[in-house]
Amino acid sequence: LRSRLSQIILLFQVNPGGKRQSQAPGMGLVNSTFREEQIQKLRTGNLGIGHTRYSTSGISGLQNCQPFVVETLHGKIAVAHNGELVNAKKLKMKVLRHGVGLSTSSDSELITQLLALTPPKEEADTPDWVARIRNLMTATLTSYSLLVMYKDVIYAVRDPYGNRPLCLGRLVPVSKFDSPKTEGWVVSSESCSFQSIGARYYREVLPGEIVQISKHGIKTLDRVPRPGGDPPAFCIFEYVYFARPDSIFEGQMVYTVRRRCGHQLAIEAPVDADLVSTVPESATPAALGYAQEAGLPYVEVLCKNRYVGRTFIQPNTRLRQLGVAQKFGALSDNFAGKRIVLIDDSIVRGNTISPIIKVLKEAGAKEVHIRVASPPIRFPCYMGINIPTKEELIANKPEFEDLAGYIGANSVVYLSVDGLLSAVQEGSKSLRPNSIISNGDNDSKSSPKQIGHCTACLTGKYPVELEW
Amino acid sequence: LRSRLSQIILLFQVNPGGKRQSQAPGMGLVNSTFREEQIQKLRTGNLGIGHTRYSTSGISGLQNCQPFVVETLHGKIAVAHNGELVNAKKLKMKVLRHGVGLSTSSDSELITQLLALTPPKEEADTPDWVARIRNLMTATLTSYSLLVMYKDVIYAVRDPYGNRPLCLGRLVPVSKFDSPKTEGWVVSSESCSFQSIGARYYREVLPGEIVQISKHGIKTLDRVPRPGGDPPAFCIFEYVYFARPDSIFEGQMVYTVRRRCGHQLAIEAPVDADLVSTVPESATPAALGYAQEAGLPYVEVLCKNRYVGRTFIQPNTRLRQLGVAQKFGALSDNFAGKRIVLIDDSIVRGNTISPIIKVLKEAGAKEVHIRVASPPIRFPCYMGINIPTKEELIANKPEFEDLAGYIGANSVVYLSVDGLLSAVQEGSKSLRPNSIISNGDNDSKSSPKQIGHCTACLTGKYPVELEW
Amino acid sequence: LRSRLSQIILLFQVNPGGKRQSQAPGMGLVNSTFREEQIQKLRTGNLGIGHTRYSTSGISGLQNCQPFVVETLHGKIAVAHNGELVNAKKLKMKVLRHGVGLSTSSDSELITQLLALTPPKEEADTPDWVARIRNLMTATLTSYSLLVMYKDVIYAVRDPYGNRPLCLGRLVPVSKFDSPKTEGWVVSSESCSFQSIGARYYREVLPGEIVQISKHGIKTLDRVPRPGGDPPAFCIFEYVYFARPDSIFEGQMVYTVRRRCGHQLAIEAPVDADLVSTVPESATPAALGYAQEAGLPYVEVLCKNRYVGRTFIQPNTRLRQLGVAQKFGALSDNFAGKRIVLIDDSIVRGNTISPIIKVLKEAGAKEVHIRVASPPIRFPCYMGINIPTKEELIANKPEFEDLAGYIGANSVVYLSVDGLLSAVQEGSKSLRPNSIISNGDNDSKSSPKQIGHCTACLTGKYPVELEW
Amino acid sequence: LRSRLSQIILLFQVNPGGKRQSQAPGMGLVNSTFREEQIQKLRTGNLGIGHTRYSTSGISGLQNCQPFVVETLHGKIAVAHNGELVNAKKLKMKVLRHGVGLSTSSDSELITQLLALTPPKEEADTPDWVARIRNLMTATLTSYSLLVMYKDVIYAVRDPYGNRPLCLGRLVPVSKFDSPKTEGWVVSSESCSFQSIGARYYREVLPGEIVQISKHGIKTLDRVPRPGGDPPAFCIFEYVYFARPDSIFEGQMVYTVRRRCGHQLAIEAPVDADLVSTVPESATPAALGYAQEAGLPYVEVLCKNRYVGRTFIQPNTRLRQLGVAQKFGALSDNFAGKRIVLIDDSIVRGNTISPIIKVLKEAGAKEVHIRVASPPIRFPCYMGINIPTKEELIANKPEFEDLAGYIGANSVVYLSVDGLLSAVQEGSKSLRPNSIISNGDNDSKSSPKQIGHCTACLTGKYPVELEW
Repeated sequence: LRSRLSQIILLFQVNPGGKRQSQAPGMGLVNSTFREEQIQKLRTGNLGIGHTRYSTSGISGLQNCQPFVVETLHGKIAVAHNGELVNAKKLKMKVLRHGVGLSTSSDSELITQLLALTPPKEEADTPDWVARIRNLMTATLTSYSLLVMYKDVIYAVRDPYGNRPLCLGRLVPVSKFDSPKTEGWVVSSESCSFQSIGARYYREVLPGEIVQISKHGIKTLDRVPRPGGDPPAFCIFEYVYFARPDSIFEGQMVYTVRRRCGHQLAIEAPVDADLVSTVPESATPAALGYAQEAGLPYVEVLCKNRYVGRTFIQPNTRLRQLGVAQKFGALSDNFAGKRIVLIDDSIVRGNTISPIIKVLKEAGAKEVHIRVASPPIRFPCYMGINIPTKEELIANKPEFEDLAGYIGANSVVYLSVDGLLSAVQEGSKSLRPNSIISNGDNDSKSSPKQIGHCTACLTGKYPVELEW
Repeated sequence: LRSRLSQIILLFQVNPGGKRQSQAPGMGLVNSTFREEQIQKLRTGNLGIGHTRYSTSGISGLQNCQPFVVETLHGKIAVAHNGELVNAKKLKMKVLRHGVGLSTSSDSELITQLLALTPPKEEADTPDWVARIRNLMTATLTSYSLLVMYKDVIYAVRDPYGNRPLCLGRLVPVSKFDSPKTEGWVVSSESCSFQSIGARYYREVLPGEIVQISKHGIKTLDRVPRPGGDPPAFCIFEYVYFARPDSIFEGQMVYTVRRRCGHQLAIEAPVDADLVSTVPESATPAALGYAQEAGLPYVEVLCKNRYVGRTFIQPNTRLRQLGVAQKFGALSDNFAGKRIVLIDDSIVRGNTISPIIKVLKEAGAKEVHIRVASPPIRFPCYMGINIPTKEELIANKPEFEDLAGYIGANSVVYLSVDGLLSAVQEGSKSLRPNSIISNGDNDSKSSPKQIGHCTACLTGKYPVELEW
Repeated sequence: LRSRLSQIILLFQVNPGGKRQSQAPGMGLVNSTFREEQIQKLRTGNLGIGHTRYSTSGISGLQNCQPFVVETLHGKIAVAHNGELVNAKKLKMKVLRHGVGLSTSSDSELITQLLALTPPKEEADTPDWVARIRNLMTATLTSYSLLVMYKDVIYAVRDPYGNRPLCLGRLVPVSKFDSPKTEGWVVSSESCSFQSIGARYYREVLPGEIVQISKHGIKTLDRVPRPGGDPPAFCIFEYVYFARPDSIFEGQMVYTVRRRCGHQLAIEAPVDADLVSTVPESATPAALGYAQEAGLPYVEVLCKNRYVGRTFIQPNTRLRQLGVAQKFGALSDNFAGKRIVLIDDSIVRGNTISPIIKVLKEAGAKEVHIRVASPPIRFPCYMGINIPTKEELIANKPEFEDLAGYIGANSVVYLSVDGLLSAVQEGSKSLRPNSIISNGDNDSKSSPKQIGHCTACLTGKYPVELEW
Repeated sequence: LRSRLSQIILLFQVNPGGKRQSQAPGMGLVNSTFREEQIQKLRTGNLGIGHTRYSTSGISGLQNCQPFVVETLHGKIAVAHNGELVNAKKLKMKVLRHGVGLSTSSDSELITQLLALTPPKEEADTPDWVARIRNLMTATLTSYSLLVMYKDVIYAVRDPYGNRPLCLGRLVPVSKFDSPKTEGWVVSSESCSFQSIGARYYREVLPGEIVQISKHGIKTLDRVPRPGGDPPAFCIFEYVYFARPDSIFEGQMVYTVRRRCGHQLAIEAPVDADLVSTVPESATPAALGYAQEAGLPYVEVLCKNRYVGRTFIQPNTRLRQLGVAQKFGALSDNFAGKRIVLIDDSIVRGNTISPIIKVLKEAGAKEVHIRVASPPIRFPCYMGINIPTKEELIANKPEFEDLAGYIGANSVVYLSVDGLLSAVQEGSKSLRPNSIISNGDNDSKSSPKQIGHCTACLTGKYPVELEW
């Protein structure tokens, strides 16, 4: 269960006193997107690092980076993209029919070529990038968050349904050596990345919003409406699984939502047990929430094996059978003879929880009750999340009938879809900063529709009709 | 603060039915020690992997591995070693005077060459390895745990003071495909490694013990005594810092000791606060112990930044100043406006806790009280732990006078040495399995002395007199 | 002095008995171009090898290879290209004006996008690739040799001026295990590559020719004429420098041309000397030719240092000053006290011949007379050869006035342009295979113009007017 | 057919004016030996380079380099070694019996440990390295050339039989920036390496000689005699195959010897043919010698394929069958319809010449007569050369009876052993510089015995009796 792009992030820094930074003549731009495989390369310290070394001195230095950079009639544009276009096939045919050859199968190239196409009404010498972006957003309603860079301006764009996150941060002085006038803007999929580069969360880019970032600051240029008064459709799995717990979406911290999921789960599925614990580390907030609501002690039962991956012994059949059990050490003194409620954040395929239960039982657990802090996944995602095929999902298999028996647990209960939605929506806020232009969008009238989440993988209800 | 060798581990497997495993004709032996840099290499997937690929078919395949392998008059011996010989210089002169050239500065080579030297009383054609090992142990009392392999026998040896850990595990069938007669022994510095290779903890090798492992099983050959009725001196920092929480030393789980340190710390250094938290992840058991004893809620305030190390932005002065703050995200919703007791496992140099406190305060913490679950380190270790120089230790600096002010905390208190010792010794047991030969050792008379710990880095009291 | 692309090569193999090869279902295609840097990667055995591993089972496998592969409205096309379009800028504006974004600055992408553009007269569902290629050739007259692959057909194309080489080879059975019916075609920039893959030279692709290669064999589809009765303009430096000596152009072996250059040089610039020698290895044919014509013995005076590049000693100022002298060992016994005529194939910058002369004189040469088997380079190449800037060319520098003094030779003479042309054209043949369609090309009338060579870098006369 | 160590080389530089070089405080030492695999690593630019980066500031920096460095009672010594000890087994037992463990199977470690052993008569505090080296040389008579470094002195040593080469060079100023007082000494297996580091050949180290190199210059300390008036036994294959043609042994250039072998071969085995050619590049001197003696033209018939190794096409059975033919291109215009005498330097296994002959015949050669410029190899070498096993040598196979038929040649003749010896000894000189101490060696009386060569691989006559 992986997001295709883990993050888009962009740093835009201005020193307003008219003084340019020595390392960034003209304007300091850094822009990059990372696919998981690149991050992997970085971690291993190999040549992949070369891909992230770029000059910070303008667009030309970005040629070889991850953002798709193309030369157009009006100069270079760079596009970074997170998400997946639901009607990519249709758009692709449009581009091909115009006589353009596509050298990759990526949505990024498709978006870039769509932006490069001259719209009919544009005058020859003055490209109207906002009009082109608006055309693009009308032609494809979801799912994307975009950064488009042209000369010294960046456009930060979120699709009308707001399916993928995007937020703005503001650079702050991090030391006494920083000029107090230091100013700058950062755009990221996740607000948690701001702290690590010395920026502060400012606000989300709203669904359908086009934000211009330049040396004059940020400015909302437009908000493209959703058709027919549809509510937004922010991916609910960002809360459940993808985002780092210290990220903020819709005015609330992800950690808090996960904790509320634990509370809700304790209400929906109580157990007569001795202690509550977690599959470290992602399920810990839900476990603490469950423990508090249930009035049971929170106790650690598993520790992560830092040595896994360092398989120092020639793998053989015997060791392969140990499987997942190698990843966790049992803290047996903490639970021997006890009844455990073990919280997991999701059970997708069902093949990792089973050996964990076995480890706990062999180390002396009297009972192991599994509580899952999200509903079962049953449907494919066409908006950027790599979900296993329908056949691989445990919720679509015959074994799901007696899941507890199948995985060796004393009981297993998932959070309900309604429970998840209430945990998410209890704290989410509709944000409407004053600076936003009100160009006939339907937001002003129907405020209840400003909160809405995509639960397609859980319910099969997709935000837009799927075209093939 | 790093152990030089993170682990020695050895797998010795026998199929007693006389049937040899196809991949290990004769006897399956795997033996390896890992220095931190090798593990690093493994993690990055580079050529270092080559170092750990060896045939499992006998000693000859071990030539290029980490254990020091030398050819002696009687054939090859392989030696793996954890620790540091306190009188290495003196031993080195002895070997050099005999006319041996040493090609490395490692204790392993020194030990190997000492074992290769023919003792005066040995007859020409029959090497008496046990006598040679006993000679070695008499010549150097600490600090080492050793594995010595000769032909199809392995000797597992722990120094008379038991300064470095060593324990025995037993292979168990992990699947229905394993023969119920499968038998085998594993030796490791830390019992936690047994679970991940499908073995069960059996017992510790005792201080001074020489255990022989062969196809006939395990057998204690000797126990070399300590001089003058000295107590053992097991490194107390294995409990505090090095060992994985699910490891077992002296009959108790490390996690439990750490939790007791938290209890003790709450008794010694209470705070009027709203919540207790941890610097993830190593201080969590102590934090849970403190919270329970103090009757305060345990709450998470920091999450680890999985993206650190993937510095996707060209490092510049500005970012370097962010330092440690990049490694942790603040879960501000959990603590804004609250008074925090933050538990850390140790403060050595004092330069990592300070930016963490700053992050918490900037994110809204009202007060941050630091409680350290171990005493301050003040003295160098000559027994295998890389401790910063005396000058670098915060406890030896003038700033230690007003440490709270220096690091920006509202208060800071360390655990006392007595508090640590009581937390450690409350649950530790003197083990004397029946199988141990009683060849005049003084253990039988003075049982109180069977428990003893090295606190040299905290107190300056070294287990043996230091020779230079 | 480097060709941008050292070679394009393509293997097309058919087993006519209707039986498909197991490893290449449908049709065995292998297509690749190598830039110098890739070859460098291959030589060093690093990850670059990955770039050349592709399945041989059709176009889809070629996605990540060197040929530019794009998806068009009608499916994928792959384009491999050698040369440089003289009017690339103009063509680029045409493509950009159509609204296409270009992601690289390569001519290959430009050619591919031009081929992807639907021509006005083409019917929607049936792409007429030959018409598209013809359009391209009319729009840009030189310099290129192309391979265009679409489904199971390949078009081999040489520009109307024939500036870059391209030739056809035929696969032959190399062992008794090959079916005698094995058939297949190979296209390459240089015929020398045929022998190493078990093929035989068949013929050149003619200037302006479009050859179709399919399972039905080869077929000339068209010959695009040159405007105004221009002669062809095959790059004369392929003979002088680039090509391997066993390659065949215009019906003659490169080695033979180089030998003739040596003869001509002996006639134009005789010396009263004792022996003739070569700067190994490329000037050897010219040196043997000179020696024969001059009636002087051919003797080796330099041997290549196989150890250079293995600089086993920390480079320091002292060693860097040794420079080129490190690359050659002096065979002093062969020439001490003698007068040497030393033949080099070209002197471009003038900084390598000087230390060679110094080595020879220090090793005892009485006189060193340099004879260069090509004329001086004075002008830039816009057709694919990387020539140093005008300012770097020794022939444009003041030092050229007294070149012998500058490089330390007793005399130095270059071959004349007329001498080079006569050496080249003495053996070259106008080839007109019967199979060629005669669609109004002017070849049939003006046979003298069928031989012509580009000498732009020597004379400044470019084959077409340069547009910017 | 490979030498185990391709070269030992050492640079020792002194600036006698009392001024030390900034980069080499005290004394500039660089010392390294290269095994073929290391050179391979260097060539491919990978981490192997790290092995040759060392500080030039003394012995300590050499710890991780190729020379075997050990710490002895008196400090570190470094030993670099070329050759193979004929009685290594016996020496090994001596060392093992003394109680030394050997961690490698290399002769270098064995030599180093033998030097580390205190000789009986040495006084405790003053190591007498010359006596130790003399002891070593008496204990093992051949085959080795050694460099032994201790503090700021180096001993260059050649075994009494002079089986492996070793020579001295003198650093010369290479630019006007060099001080005219720059002085220094270089030691190398091959004199050809001197030119590439800016040194001049000085003289050979004589068989049995111990030369001391220090800041006071060079000095012969001793000459260890051969037993019973034996002649020297310099490896004749250094002339035939290993050495670079510009190297000097016994006062003559290797190139000149190879040319004489060609003359001799023309006398021994004349052919009625049209031209003489070479298998490039090592056989070229012999081919030029043959051509001159035979009065036939020297013509090139093969060119090396620079693209081999860059196998750009997926290897399959078909291509593998092309084998060696891929390495050479046929210059067919030069020999079509002609009778060729093709000179090769040696035929060892007989599997490379056969496809070359096939290439030539397919390209139109009328006849191909093979003449080999050395006698057939029939016996193993125990002195450092890796020769195929007796069974693999073509001269020991039944096919040798009709070798011409087997390899497809019209005739094949090897040079005779006597012919080779006369070609080698015609120009070799017995060198006795005045500076050599005459300590009772038998050289002074029996000058005819000063020239002698090891022909063991050709004749089975080994220089010393082989002990096992």
